[in-house]
Amino acid sequence: MPPVRRAALPCLLLCLWASRTQGAVCNVTGVWMSAMGSILKLAVSPDAELGGNYMTSVETMKGAAGNQRQSRLSGLLNRGAQPTFAFSVVWEGGSSSSWVGQCLVLGDGSQVLKTLWMLRSAAQGPEDDWKSTRIGEDTFFHLPAEE
Amino acid sequence: MPPVRRAALPCLLLCLWASRTQGAVCNVTGVWMSAMGSILKLAVSPDAELGGNYMTSVETMKGAAGNQRQSRLSGLLNRGAQPTFAFSVVWEGGSSSSWVGQCLVLGDGSQVLKTLWMLRSAAQGPEDDWKSTRIGEDTFFHLPAEE
Amino acid sequence: MPPVRRAALPCLLLCLWASRTQGAVCNVTGVWMSAMGSILKLAVSPDAELGGNYMTSVETMKGAAGNQRQSRLSGLLNRGAQPTFAFSVVWEGGSSSSWVGQCLVLGDGSQVLKTLWMLRSAAQGPEDDWKSTRIGEDTFFHLPAEE
Amino acid sequence: MPPVRRAALPCLLLCLWASRTQGAVCNVTGVWMSAMGSILKLAVSPDAELGGNYMTSVETMKGAAGNQRQSRLSGLLNRGAQPTFAFSVVWEGGSSSSWVGQCLVLGDGSQVLKTLWMLRSAAQGPEDDWKSTRIGEDTFFHLPAEE
Repeated sequence: MPPVRRAALPCLLLCLWASRTQGAVCNVTGVWMSAMGSILKLAVSPDAELGGNYMTSVETMKGAAGNQRQSRLSGLLNRGAQPTFAFSVVWEGGSSSSWVGQCLVLGDGSQVLKTLWMLRSAAQGPEDDWKSTRIGEDTFFHLPAEE
Repeated sequence: MPPVRRAALPCLLLCLWASRTQGAVCNVTGVWMSAMGSILKLAVSPDAELGGNYMTSVETMKGAAGNQRQSRLSGLLNRGAQPTFAFSVVWEGGSSSSWVGQCLVLGDGSQVLKTLWMLRSAAQGPEDDWKSTRIGEDTFFHLPAEE
Repeated sequence: MPPVRRAALPCLLLCLWASRTQGAVCNVTGVWMSAMGSILKLAVSPDAELGGNYMTSVETMKGAAGNQRQSRLSGLLNRGAQPTFAFSVVWEGGSSSSWVGQCLVLGDGSQVLKTLWMLRSAAQGPEDDWKSTRIGEDTFFHLPAEE
Repeated sequence: MPPVRRAALPCLLLCLWASRTQGAVCNVTGVWMSAMGSILKLAVSPDAELGGNYMTSVETMKGAAGNQRQSRLSGLLNRGAQPTFAFSVVWEGGSSSSWVGQCLVLGDGSQVLKTLWMLRSAAQGPEDDWKSTRIGEDTFFHLPAEE
């Protein structure tokens, strides 16, 4: 067996592995929608800062999220094929939210953002602090890229 | 009573009110320490972005927070005398954290940051997603300004 | 029109209303399954105590939930057509869980238990307390009654 | 060396170890108070069920916790020297709470219950589910036994 052939198998395996790994990379950039209908636009800067905006479909009270119900977001993306991340949004009514989550590749190859969020309302003072934080879950699905 | 005196009382009241309001303003900028000994340095940009860094005193496992246990943070500050905020940190080991909270003025005039945090570990895949988020509480106290 | 007939329409309306209200009642008793495949058997005592057992499909580490992965549960049910509830489970490995949630009737008439849970692991001591609580979401769907 | 002496050292060590372990046992039975002033009375049944009652010092809205602000609790205690536990309370206004936590012995020998709680409000329907869960932290300190 000539040397060139001897090298072929490892190379082929490496390529297969690389393509498989490539397939499993989860890319947070783009437009995502939650089960509640909220829209999340994520952009990643060269130094792994997350920007974009969040358009909520829900409010705790009318007006809490502002007229547009849309806010810029600010966060950070970690490294890895299925990276974790965290980002923040502040709302016109005085409350602030943050999400932590991970971009995960499902068995069918589709990508989801699995997140948990906290929503901090503005307490009048220290005595109302205890009841000011809500928590919940959001799963975001990729929307087709905008033209 | 001459005009200048007639204006003095409202002005005085306004000054008193302003000084009292001023006293109740909670200012997130500066250096804070949690009960666990973590150090939080917060700076606020002109458009209400939070920057700075977070030096943790604890890790879930040795090395999870990186060699320096220190990371930049990115977040947003809301408006108000006792503003809410949210910020994020990513850790060298692959996990990401976010905090939501509020800067509150206590009865003795001291300021605290009352926060809740979530810590998202990197799951190997969707099947490990369920157990990947921890939650807890942090109260931060102001350290004297650095010279 | 004889008196008996005059009373018939309100009575009919009341019956219709009652049956419609009846339809919107969410009944926690029975067997439920989560998206992860965990099985929850709930029984309600005359004084609104929740009993039954919980068979988990997942563990944080092999053995954490015990050999049978099944544990009795103990909790309380609140009043109302779509009642809130809370229940607890302790695991063989030393950890304890609780759920809070609500039995909700969806638009198609099906019933779900929307819950959030916390899982407390046993810390070695106070210094490990901060990292000992996980949080997540579970939605349970009704399984057909067992014969 | 006579046989009785040969056995003395191991016995002594065992006694020392037992007394030290005994000292580190955290006993949840009794009356506890949180930093907010809520009072928790805990009793443990022979099969490790937690009973007692909870008297809250705070409410989300006037009346939410009922006239007495006091409710029975139901939960489970795990095994161990510093056991984890979980318990539930339902409130007159329709909401339900649960706590998970651990009884921990501090460096000075005092005992605390470190807990996190969730409070589930009754949503009008599935569309309000997302905002129905609050979360927070409670640390309980032992009150002297009642005579």
